[in-house]
Amino acid sequence: MDRPRPFGFILETCLYARDLAPIERFYTQVLGLQKMSAEYPRHVFFHVSQTSVLLVFNPDVTIKKTEIPAHGAIGPGHVAFAVEPDDLEAWKTYLPAEGVEIEREITWGNGARSIYFRDPAGNSVEIVTKQIWNR
Amino acid sequence: MDRPRPFGFILETCLYARDLAPIERFYTQVLGLQKMSAEYPRHVFFHVSQTSVLLVFNPDVTIKKTEIPAHGAIGPGHVAFAVEPDDLEAWKTYLPAEGVEIEREITWGNGARSIYFRDPAGNSVEIVTKQIWNR
Repeated sequence: MDRPRPFGFILETCLYARDLAPIERFYTQVLGLQKMSAEYPRHVFFHVSQTSVLLVFNPDVTIKKTEIPAHGAIGPGHVAFAVEPDDLEAWKTYLPAEGVEIEREITWGNGARSIYFRDPAGNSVEIVTKQIWNR
Repeated sequence: MDRPRPFGFILETCLYARDLAPIERFYTQVLGLQKMSAEYPRHVFFHVSQTSVLLVFNPDVTIKKTEIPAHGAIGPGHVAFAVEPDDLEAWKTYLPAEGVEIEREITWGNGARSIYFRDPAGNSVEIVTKQIWNR
C-alpha cells in the first residue's frame, strides 16, 4: 500500500544517564533548557523548541518492562543543538567560563562550525551553526 | 557571565546500530526518510525535516578515537517522529502491511496518541501526534 505522508519532524530526542540530578542542573543552569518534567530516578525532560524536546532517561529503569516499550542504552550518546552563527562564538566563551571544557571545534567544508563538549554523564553534546545540513 | 541566546532546536538525533544495511532499507523504504549520506560500516544519515536529521552510527566504529569526539551506545535507544493526527491512522494501517509489528499504542492524557514499533536494530521508534508536548 502507499506510504502515508512523511513525518513532520523529530519531536523526541533521547539521551541516557544514570545520575539525573547533575543532568538536570547541567541542561537547565548551564545550557539554559527549560525543564518540562522530572520523575526521579526515571527521567528528566527538557523543552528545547516548539518542535523538539530532549528526554534523558535512566536506562536501568526504562530497560524494564512497563506500559512504555522498553529502551535504554549504555555508553555515550550524541545530540546536536542548532544556533545562529553569531551565537556559536558566545557559547564558546561562555562554556569554559562555566567550567565546561570544549573538547573539539570543527569547521566543516560548507563553512558550518561545531563545538563539542560532554554532559555530566559523558554524552557528546554539540552546538552547531544551523546551516550544516542545508541541502 | 550571561548565558548566550537559547538554542534554536535539536538538529541531530542519533541512534546506534551495528548492521547498517537493514537500517538504511527500513528508514528509507518503510518509513520514507530521505538518505543524506552513508559511509559503511560507520554511519547512515537521514533527512527528516528542515530542522531535524537522524544519524545512525555503528557504535563499534564511533566509540574509537578520531577527529570527531568518541560516542557510541549499546542497547535500544528511542526516537519519536511527529505527524498530523490524521496521518497516525494511516501509519497504523501501513506498518503492519509492511510487516512491521505495532508493539504498543497509547492515548495520552491530553488526547495525543502514539504508536511504537522497533527498527531492525531493536531501537524503539514512536510516531506521535504532534501536540503531545504542547505547553
